Amino acid sequence: MPDVRTQELARRLAVARGDEPADLVLRGGRVFSVFTNEFLDVDVAISDGHIAALGRYEGIETSEVTGLTLLPGFIDGHLHIESTKLLPNQFARAVLPHGTTTVVIDPHEISNVFGLDGVRELLRRADTVPLDVFMMVSSCVPASRFESSGATVTPEEIERFLRTEPRALGVAEMMDYQGLAHGSPDALAKVEAAYEAGDRHIDGHAPGLTGHDLNAYLAAGAASDHECTTFEEALEKRRLGMWIMLREGSAARNLEALLPLVLRYGPRNCLLCTDDREPNDLRDEGHIDAVLRRAVQLGCPVEDALVMATLNAARYHRLHRYGAIAPGRIADVVAVAELEGFEPVRVWKAGRLVAQDGRPIDIPAIEPMPAWMHDSVHVRPLVAADLAVPAAARIRVIGVESGQIVTRALVDDATVREGVSVADPDRDLAKIAVVERHRNTGRIGLGFVRGFGIRHGAIASTHAHDAHNVVVVGSDDADMAAAVARLGEIGGGQVAVGGGAVLAEIPCPVGGLVSELPFEEVASRFDTLEDAAREIGVTLPAPFMALSFLALSVVPELKMSDHGLVDTVGMRLVSIDAEG
Amino acid sequence: MPDVRTQELARRLAVARGDEPADLVLRGGRVFSVFTNEFLDVDVAISDGHIAALGRYEGIETSEVTGLTLLPGFIDGHLHIESTKLLPNQFARAVLPHGTTTVVIDPHEISNVFGLDGVRELLRRADTVPLDVFMMVSSCVPASRFESSGATVTPEEIERFLRTEPRALGVAEMMDYQGLAHGSPDALAKVEAAYEAGDRHIDGHAPGLTGHDLNAYLAAGAASDHECTTFEEALEKRRLGMWIMLREGSAARNLEALLPLVLRYGPRNCLLCTDDREPNDLRDEGHIDAVLRRAVQLGCPVEDALVMATLNAARYHRLHRYGAIAPGRIADVVAVAELEGFEPVRVWKAGRLVAQDGRPIDIPAIEPMPAWMHDSVHVRPLVAADLAVPAAARIRVIGVESGQIVTRALVDDATVREGVSVADPDRDLAKIAVVERHRNTGRIGLGFVRGFGIRHGAIASTHAHDAHNVVVVGSDDADMAAAVARLGEIGGGQVAVGGGAVLAEIPCPVGGLVSELPFEEVASRFDTLEDAAREIGVTLPAPFMALSFLALSVVPELKMSDHGLVDTVGMRLVSIDAEG
Repeated sequence: MPDVRTQELARRLAVARGDEPADLVLRGGRVFSVFTNEFLDVDVAISDGHIAALGRYEGIETSEVTGLTLLPGFIDGHLHIESTKLLPNQFARAVLPHGTTTVVIDPHEISNVFGLDGVRELLRRADTVPLDVFMMVSSCVPASRFESSGATVTPEEIERFLRTEPRALGVAEMMDYQGLAHGSPDALAKVEAAYEAGDRHIDGHAPGLTGHDLNAYLAAGAASDHECTTFEEALEKRRLGMWIMLREGSAARNLEALLPLVLRYGPRNCLLCTDDREPNDLRDEGHIDAVLRRAVQLGCPVEDALVMATLNAARYHRLHRYGAIAPGRIADVVAVAELEGFEPVRVWKAGRLVAQDGRPIDIPAIEPMPAWMHDSVHVRPLVAADLAVPAAARIRVIGVESGQIVTRALVDDATVREGVSVADPDRDLAKIAVVERHRNTGRIGLGFVRGFGIRHGAIASTHAHDAHNVVVVGSDDADMAAAVARLGEIGGGQVAVGGGAVLAEIPCPVGGLVSELPFEEVASRFDTLEDAAREIGVTLPAPFMALSFLALSVVPELKMSDHGLVDTVGMRLVSIDAEG
Repeated sequence: MPDVRTQELARRLAVARGDEPADLVLRGGRVFSVFTNEFLDVDVAISDGHIAALGRYEGIETSEVTGLTLLPGFIDGHLHIESTKLLPNQFARAVLPHGTTTVVIDPHEISNVFGLDGVRELLRRADTVPLDVFMMVSSCVPASRFESSGATVTPEEIERFLRTEPRALGVAEMMDYQGLAHGSPDALAKVEAAYEAGDRHIDGHAPGLTGHDLNAYLAAGAASDHECTTFEEALEKRRLGMWIMLREGSAARNLEALLPLVLRYGPRNCLLCTDDREPNDLRDEGHIDAVLRRAVQLGCPVEDALVMATLNAARYHRLHRYGAIAPGRIADVVAVAELEGFEPVRVWKAGRLVAQDGRPIDIPAIEPMPAWMHDSVHVRPLVAADLAVPAAARIRVIGVESGQIVTRALVDDATVREGVSVADPDRDLAKIAVVERHRNTGRIGLGFVRGFGIRHGAIASTHAHDAHNVVVVGSDDADMAAAVARLGEIGGGQVAVGGGAVLAEIPCPVGGLVSELPFEEVASRFDTLEDAAREIGVTLPAPFMALSFLALSVVPELKMSDHGLVDTVGMRLVSIDAEG
């Protein structure tokens, strides 16, 4: 008696031969071939969730797609699902209508809070969702020795996870790029773990790395990079074999700078990713479809853009059954009316209609996250005095720029009042604090930041890459303390405070990272939250995303941790006092 | 204490950083980047057989390559090493000077004689040779029910071999394309074996397959094809996702017909292979370098040709550390003086100089093949009468064409003398026989063939795809019988007979397939053998290669087995008498 797989295969072949009707035939469309860049006038015959054949076919069910163009389901090559603040089913509801049918996540936010046990729980919730969620195993938890995470991930755990979790493809971004390039034993052990688990691929993360150190990083096995910010940087990396992920997130928007790489050298070795997207950006702009639209607006041939969003992402991630509308592949199909708009009229995941006219269809509820993944934010009540910074003449200031997660290390005069250095909205000088929240140590790092434009109050978040302590930026110490306290009360999330009162908030009780509300509600609350930030003067686009990256100690140049200011180029702690 | 791999990796990174000198630096050349199609002015730093870095580097040893262009080592995506009649070290001596550093073999000739035990012995001999010999596990042994092989390979054996043999990448050409497309249980079980062993890739072999049956074949998992003979055929297959191997063997020369696929649609999904090459073609024309030269002569951009011969072959076969000169890859480098000539001045395999100016350097001897792999040709002495064919009016004739392994099914008048149908050189009508030789059953299949031009005597071979019985073509029954007898005496090989005497021969005592002589001697003997064939009138180019394919029952249209004539389109035995 043949097993189920063989029975399904035998039926698929019968469908392809025309001996049996397909489960579903998409009839009358133009099908994009990622292998020849052509648009083919063929039907698509689907059987047991796979594409059985292209040609002329009959089906038990037929979907008329005359006038529409059929594209392979879009693939996001690298993202942190936690940044959307959505559970897997709500994330699916958000992205399926935009044509995304496969994502490769690095769940290193959850990893930093709960370790790989938390990741396993998250992945289990994806099992019942009509979206393929593959993952790369978080490699740098904590991201560096300057970050106080709630959990660590060892090389042994990485290897075991790769061997036991079918969704795990390889090792996620090796953010400790200096450590790896310089042969740190821990980094090498993680490379070895990837090898031992079957020579898996390793995502890179190497902002600005160049020359000899870049070569060392690649020689160690880092195979991709999503942190390029200039054409020259991306070209150097691509010449040396890296797969370049053109990133267009909510804060980090690198597509425009990097697209010349595709225009001049073609799409080989390039794919698309979003890395981190806010829920309302998913709703308003979209997901990979938005990146495709932007690429074409910037002059990219539509075929090249599509190949990056489908075949190339699949090939990089060794997902041999994804990324194309072709016999034997998973039947992930996006129907669009107007090609360059990339706006899905209908979306099929594994042969099932999952979205139509921008709305998801019948995405099932998931099992609630376990109790132990709630209640993870442990902070003692703060008072304004906890946030006082001693007076100094010249101070280091984190310079934030719109559309970048890299910062500049600035130095400026301090504004001193009553013996302490204070925020000074007129000079766009805000105070920043990172408060350790996993073990309630009371440890607080303090500093200054420029670029938000905040004039009153504070904004705070337990999304604070990658250790996800509490990060808070404000012009008023009391409001900053109140914002931290509020996040402690609601189990984490994001909040805006002004005049001592909570103006808006999103509770993220799952690890302080993920909401349990529906996508629409999360996006709508996020609108309110961003509006509240504007009310207190914030001018920076995507301010909460920018806020959450101010604690990430593996991106140049100057960042904030609960231990204090981190010079992320020299990888050392530095004082606020620039002359101290 | 870190293990050797980690120590090597740490040193490689130190070399890349410039902290330690490389083992070897190739200085002053232009390096081709397969990722951007550029030629870069950089040194290549090599450490423990890997490329550590590109840039400016110092080495313990330095090789001056100013004025030369450095290319990644060439990869043959599909070949039967036995067709060269060479042992692995002699094959390495033959191809390394031509720039080939990696081959993916399907050893299904040895498999048909000795099963996978014979393959394991062959592969062991490659361990000490500076050439990477990967393999696909022979899937169709015997090739069809019409072929009497010496061994069979079961789905269980395929799966076990894939799990236990590190050189085994996937499943070799599924030549039973009708069986697979029609869901035969045996073919499906082999697909399942590939899946169970880790979702390995499966080579296709589907000459002329089109439409619904082609879709079924692809839906089953066949991922590549090296049997395309027309542009239209290759285009249909590529559109549907197949990797197209542009083949240029000794007999099957498909490059010219297929190259428009690359000229019009670019090199995506295309790679190069030779499938079957005679030893003197390797000496005189070359190997993949010859295919590259031909491609460029036919108008292919040199960069596209190179990408097919390197990166694309590596990507198709999932050899992630091959196919590029880039940090972390195996240091396989070919230096050429004149780019479009592709003639290697120097060749490095894993950082070691293995050929210079067309000559191999220090290729070690190998352990002799075991005794049980000799003495495999078991035939009783034949007499001319054994080869008599009853008289008929109209007879079926196998039509051979130069440069093709497909044949035409012809029908012509018989020439009848003394009550039997005979060869008639004036009408280019020769007699063909296939004599079972594994079990000495005495079974003989008889028929007629056109296209050799043979006027006297006979040529015979125990290279007779894929069962490798004795195949003999001649104009004289006595000479045909003598040729068969001689192959029995020498343990197999290839022979030309005229006037009752052996004119020339190559003994292939290993399974009747492989010589134990040095490459130069095999090539030179093969010259003599081909000369002898010309002397008895043969006009067909590469006549022994063509001869060896006349028994292959999985290529259209009409072939010969020890059971008789096989209609390989209808997959049935047919009589010689076209009206019978």
